[in-house]
Amino acid sequence: MLRPVHCVVPFKSSGCKTRLSSALSGEQRWQLAVAMLRDVLRTLRSIGMVTVLARPGMREDIIADLDATLRFSELELGDALNGFIDENTAAGWPADILIVMADLPLIREEDVLEMIRTPGGVVLAPGRGGGTNMILIRDSRFRTRYKGLSFAKHKREAEELGIEAGYCYSYRAGCDIDEPGDLIEILLHTNGESRALLERFGLRILESDGRGRLDQTQSNE
Amino acid sequence: MLRPVHCVVPFKSSGCKTRLSSALSGEQRWQLAVAMLRDVLRTLRSIGMVTVLARPGMREDIIADLDATLRFSELELGDALNGFIDENTAAGWPADILIVMADLPLIREEDVLEMIRTPGGVVLAPGRGGGTNMILIRDSRFRTRYKGLSFAKHKREAEELGIEAGYCYSYRAGCDIDEPGDLIEILLHTNGESRALLERFGLRILESDGRGRLDQTQSNE
Repeated sequence: MLRPVHCVVPFKSSGCKTRLSSALSGEQRWQLAVAMLRDVLRTLRSIGMVTVLARPGMREDIIADLDATLRFSELELGDALNGFIDENTAAGWPADILIVMADLPLIREEDVLEMIRTPGGVVLAPGRGGGTNMILIRDSRFRTRYKGLSFAKHKREAEELGIEAGYCYSYRAGCDIDEPGDLIEILLHTNGESRALLERFGLRILESDGRGRLDQTQSNE
Repeated sequence: MLRPVHCVVPFKSSGCKTRLSSALSGEQRWQLAVAMLRDVLRTLRSIGMVTVLARPGMREDIIADLDATLRFSELELGDALNGFIDENTAAGWPADILIVMADLPLIREEDVLEMIRTPGGVVLAPGRGGGTNMILIRDSRFRTRYKGLSFAKHKREAEELGIEAGYCYSYRAGCDIDEPGDLIEILLHTNGESRALLERFGLRILESDGRGRLDQTQSNE
């Protein structure tokens, strides 16, 4: 039997995804951030309770149809997540906590299930470039360290606490969308709202010199 | 019972890995290419027969201890591979063919086994950015199309031939090492010759502005 899981998805609603600015306008980046969040929430629906940790001011209606609880916090990502873990601990740990980044439009239910089936007091799913894109916390002593290159820090945190860490290496969970080159992954390997949006923006993959690059045809936005 | 598999690893021995030139000298890039090939061959040892397809002139001794057959070809990557498939077909298909790129130092035996356990007349493992980092060929009609963004082409090739395609999404198999940013993956997620070499080059991960970058301390090369 799998233990109950409470999914937590932190979402930054302002100044988001600035590293995509050479490919997308501010309004387009915001729309993509929302579409990616919605793709992630749709995947998590079957897994357990889902809470979105957002900054005050985010419009609730953008995810109203996706069975997630919206919760506002002024805190930085790491502090907001650790506050959530504190509360879960104080409440007697009713469910394990699965932290999932909001910019993982490639993930599928099978990726999340693989995470949940991996043993360990904490399970880490690396992101490309040294990040941690999902964390499953079963041991209430663990706290996140989401500043900078977090994968090595989370590994060390588990070691220092004597918590056995499991690792879940997943292509799709490893693909956080930060830079223009990452958008190709959405076009090639997904079929949800994020991809539909990029196609609506007129983005498509062109080949030049045997390498792929993004091309933007006349947008109808 | 798993069917017998013949692994084929194409290796380019000249002008290799030029996109790493901002981080590594020509001699260092060559040493890294060899170390990555050796890491891959060590992983494939337990899987089945292994043939390295190389350009004429490559020194045989660099992989002499790793149970692989070295085979020379003047042909381009795709043509050399397709010639190999032709011969396997003419010989009555004694083993399925598993093509594995030589720049995948992260792969482990479990990743290759997952590939072999995936059903399909052909099984494709995508690389980040649209490439195909491993292909398992069980249907003798399939031929590779390794120019450019090959993943979509290989998918289409299977469709056109009416071959059922399987997909193997793997974090580690998806990490081909092409650009300086990819070297972080070797330092974080491997423990073989490639990593030892990068450490010998004095490469290490530094954090600045909350993001990782490579730093090269005085090299003892």
